[in-house]
Amino acid sequence: MQAVYNIAEICAQMGITDVVLSPGSRCAPLTIAFARHPGIRVRTVPDERAAAFIGLGLAQSQKRAVALVCTSGTAGLNYAPAVAEAYFQQIPLVVFTADRPPEWIDQLDGQTIRQADLYGVHAKGTFSFPADTTHPDAKWHSARLVSEAINLAQQFPAGPVQVNVPLREPFYPKAGEELQFEAVRVIRETPARLALPGPELVALRHALRQTPRVLVVAGQHHPDDALLLALRRFTAAYQVPVVGDVISNLHQPVGATYDLRTAPLGKQDVFMAVPERGLKEALRPDLLITFGQSLISKALKLYLRDSRPAQHWHVQAAGPVADTFKSLTRIIRLEPLTFFEQLVATDYSLFGGLTSAEDTAAAKEAGKTDSITGTEAAEPGSIPGATPPRLVWPTSGWALTEADAAAKAAYSTPWHKAESWAQDFLHDFLSQEDQPFNEFTAFYHTLRHLPDGTALHLANSMAVRYANILGIPDNRRVEVFANRGTSGIDGCTSTAVGAALARPERPVVLLTGDVAFFYDRNAFWQNYPTPNLRVVLFNNHAGGIFRLIDGPRQQPELEELFETRQPLTAENTARDFGMRYFTADTFPELKLALSAFFAPVSGAALLEITTDSATNAAFFEEYRKAVRTSFS
Amino acid sequence: MQAVYNIAEICAQMGITDVVLSPGSRCAPLTIAFARHPGIRVRTVPDERAAAFIGLGLAQSQKRAVALVCTSGTAGLNYAPAVAEAYFQQIPLVVFTADRPPEWIDQLDGQTIRQADLYGVHAKGTFSFPADTTHPDAKWHSARLVSEAINLAQQFPAGPVQVNVPLREPFYPKAGEELQFEAVRVIRETPARLALPGPELVALRHALRQTPRVLVVAGQHHPDDALLLALRRFTAAYQVPVVGDVISNLHQPVGATYDLRTAPLGKQDVFMAVPERGLKEALRPDLLITFGQSLISKALKLYLRDSRPAQHWHVQAAGPVADTFKSLTRIIRLEPLTFFEQLVATDYSLFGGLTSAEDTAAAKEAGKTDSITGTEAAEPGSIPGATPPRLVWPTSGWALTEADAAAKAAYSTPWHKAESWAQDFLHDFLSQEDQPFNEFTAFYHTLRHLPDGTALHLANSMAVRYANILGIPDNRRVEVFANRGTSGIDGCTSTAVGAALARPERPVVLLTGDVAFFYDRNAFWQNYPTPNLRVVLFNNHAGGIFRLIDGPRQQPELEELFETRQPLTAENTARDFGMRYFTADTFPELKLALSAFFAPVSGAALLEITTDSATNAAFFEEYRKAVRTSFS
Repeated sequence: MQAVYNIAEICAQMGITDVVLSPGSRCAPLTIAFARHPGIRVRTVPDERAAAFIGLGLAQSQKRAVALVCTSGTAGLNYAPAVAEAYFQQIPLVVFTADRPPEWIDQLDGQTIRQADLYGVHAKGTFSFPADTTHPDAKWHSARLVSEAINLAQQFPAGPVQVNVPLREPFYPKAGEELQFEAVRVIRETPARLALPGPELVALRHALRQTPRVLVVAGQHHPDDALLLALRRFTAAYQVPVVGDVISNLHQPVGATYDLRTAPLGKQDVFMAVPERGLKEALRPDLLITFGQSLISKALKLYLRDSRPAQHWHVQAAGPVADTFKSLTRIIRLEPLTFFEQLVATDYSLFGGLTSAEDTAAAKEAGKTDSITGTEAAEPGSIPGATPPRLVWPTSGWALTEADAAAKAAYSTPWHKAESWAQDFLHDFLSQEDQPFNEFTAFYHTLRHLPDGTALHLANSMAVRYANILGIPDNRRVEVFANRGTSGIDGCTSTAVGAALARPERPVVLLTGDVAFFYDRNAFWQNYPTPNLRVVLFNNHAGGIFRLIDGPRQQPELEELFETRQPLTAENTARDFGMRYFTADTFPELKLALSAFFAPVSGAALLEITTDSATNAAFFEEYRKAVRTSFS
Repeated sequence: MQAVYNIAEICAQMGITDVVLSPGSRCAPLTIAFARHPGIRVRTVPDERAAAFIGLGLAQSQKRAVALVCTSGTAGLNYAPAVAEAYFQQIPLVVFTADRPPEWIDQLDGQTIRQADLYGVHAKGTFSFPADTTHPDAKWHSARLVSEAINLAQQFPAGPVQVNVPLREPFYPKAGEELQFEAVRVIRETPARLALPGPELVALRHALRQTPRVLVVAGQHHPDDALLLALRRFTAAYQVPVVGDVISNLHQPVGATYDLRTAPLGKQDVFMAVPERGLKEALRPDLLITFGQSLISKALKLYLRDSRPAQHWHVQAAGPVADTFKSLTRIIRLEPLTFFEQLVATDYSLFGGLTSAEDTAAAKEAGKTDSITGTEAAEPGSIPGATPPRLVWPTSGWALTEADAAAKAAYSTPWHKAESWAQDFLHDFLSQEDQPFNEFTAFYHTLRHLPDGTALHLANSMAVRYANILGIPDNRRVEVFANRGTSGIDGCTSTAVGAALARPERPVVLLTGDVAFFYDRNAFWQNYPTPNLRVVLFNNHAGGIFRLIDGPRQQPELEELFETRQPLTAENTARDFGMRYFTADTFPELKLALSAFFAPVSGAALLEITTDSATNAAFFEEYRKAVRTSFS
């Protein structure tokens, strides 16, 4: 078993600190090794589906790989939904599945399935730990492959890997026996930073300057202040509008100033639903630049597919790229951070590509006059040579000529106008007196009460959509997460529980609907306190989304087969798991409840906001009508 | 969508009557088609993991294929545990996974994963429904592949198949639009019955007669009266002991007489634990004959592996065969029913192989004297020529000479003695006064209270083990089911719920531990009443099995990482799902509760028997000690 015990040592040396276990006998050697390793924190969660999503939440919040350990048989299959989510959301998970040794597969023994390559195309790779490690090469192999697996999980794009570990009895050390961790050699990877070669950079800068109608759209992205700052500098320099969904995390306050020119837009779900053709035409980009993963805003997606920009650049360092808008023309193999930094950089040498003299020459050769290069040549003294490289933000509009700037402004102004109209409209519409109690408005109030510093988890399917319409209130630090890799409802609660375990010092708030909530109740079925967790359950006793879309609403099967009416309240669940329990089904109650609920009191809490599915649908329809008729 | 709607028509024509749906938009055309088809009964279950096990329970109880329908994304991955169980337990499931059309895979759209071949080696096959059915060949293809999928699921060994159905919007018919089901052509399969050719049969009969120490061992098998009867006739004719686990379903009363010579044995978990070497030697077989799937009894498995019979025949019509005892020498490609019928048959022509004259000749040629053939030749008048063929049971010991019979009796007697000792021992041990309240004895009493006609579902892991030790009381018709294909705890409750839905006219009783019970609580989270369901929850607030085995019991991590102490009671769950709730934590309470609980009152009920894990372990250890010392 020494080779198996060493797995814990290798993981610890490679930077894994957290392991989520599920109980089992076959996996006992792994369980014991991780539990007794001083560098590893283990937690045990009986339902493997929840365990894997809790691991995903930990990894997402801690920004490092988390290991999972389960026993043989269907245990590992219950990981599959979280593994797929990790694959598409690019979260590193190292999944150790205990197995019988190969000779016992298909021999009708209990808890035995065919575990090799259990996750197929939804894992980055699968590794077979040797069943016997008596041969010196097998020892070398077993240690090496754990390093390889962890490296693979963490390489961009990060994701899940499986290590299948066949184990023979005896599984348990003798009573009182102490485990030894041997000195192991690990193989670490140093990731380098990709950068654009000078000529490519010049060409992109040129295109950016010359094209009046440039739009930046961000997909899902983890919160990243450095990226935000680079993006702000970029938008200031080139004066292009930036649009992001709530899961793009562009709303965070960053830097000292908040300037409308550089503030990212987020109300596209509102203003893109305005049918006015003039507005649609005014917003149409010629060059679309995107980064990040999936978009929530269906209105924006459909609009961009429809408007077919002549150029669409997607910025992504590696991996397959989606042609989300059927207009992709260029894949730029960079980290988004580097891309935005390079486009405003004044010191080319940081990227090792080109001197500014060469840049000038290259630009001239291409028959272009490039106003940047002059500026750069004239101000070499402003470039700090310090490492790590921090780029200087050109505060003046050096990148653009006056004519360029005017053309850019003509395009960005309608975007900013649409955004501020949408903001005012939402406020006015949702502040109406005499509205019935409904989840859309309740959601709005809930968002406004979020404590500063919240890690916000949005469940699929309506919670994340409402949040994307309503947005995060200005100047509040709220990091936003959602399982949009696969958009499943199967692990939203567990992911939030994982986040709460990972970041006990900050409030972790989950906004969820009743179907997602009850689906994943086993998230709470473990023994680790999450005093910082706040769950807001919008209970309309159904998959309310089906009443909000035309197709199912018109079918006789609506209630039974689409909405799936369900009578549960969360009161018994809160009681079972010792959560403080709040309820609201009127606006005054909600106001009171929100203050008490979000008060900085230690102890997990659950606020159940009960609404009526038909009322929600009617109110939301009113909202949609108002959007269509109120734009001015 | 017509080709998609026709899927429902094809399923109905091919004999599928029950479909389990989970809500979703992408799958709406399938949902609507099945819901509106007059020959199909749909039920909707929000948690796909539970939905698939409910489907499995339906299929297992109804003995025909059940279809599942889910939306795109991770929904289908949540089916994976039930799909693996269906694969290894050989239960036909036809899994329809709605998908985006191929061009939209990996384009960052919501609920999109790579669904082709989602279950890998745990499905019998995977079929890709065409995304476009405008071409006449595509229409033919789409209809044909649904027939093919259903046939494949039902062919022996039965199992799960996936049909991935890419669907484009609009998903919903117009309001008020009526669906049409077109006339479809389906392709049905007529399975034939395999039979042994005459010379093979003669050789097997000869070996059976000549070998004094022949033992029959049955693995998991669905209840089958015809098989039981054939087995009784076989054991009477050849006087061989038959051993079956509780999941072999050999305990059912069948036929008019109950004769010790032909009664299958079931107390091997008890008497195989007796260390006496004389007994072990007395029971050792020279020829082992097995049929069915997995064995629960670890004691029997280890004993047979250790005793290495010279010959081991396994009877199984098709599919891979496990070498469970490391002694397999012959695979007999027959249904067990045919095997046992043929070995006592007096009319060879039923199997089309050989006349009795040819049999005599063949036997003589092989230099053997065969007492059977004489008998058969002399009594042709006793053979009924009716179809379907019903074989005549030779009531006298015609198959054996007197010497053969004496040798057989010398071997079978110690088996029968061991069985009756074990039966008496269990009764005496568990009837002791002054024992502490413990789950082993509580389990014994519960089994004795089972109503006649019960479909009994045994959860993994301790419930099925206790039941295998204790057995079903004599002369009670109780059909026994357990998810021993993969031995997972993930769907035991859902499977029982499926059985309760399938057979509303009979009591369906689930015996389960707390970990399996809380793991799969979503079994109840649906709107279909199961007034015939009785759940007995043995709650020791932990995975108590880990305290019963030596390894984990001696580890400091026992409580946190192996047992996984958990504080839940089922009271809130019963309240949430409207189940009548009973409790017991003393023997007198248990006695009262069992009578009330099993009374023929309509309405699902839950009996929670609370015990202490340490007390259980101590009492069970006492039991094990008593087994080792009490044998006489």
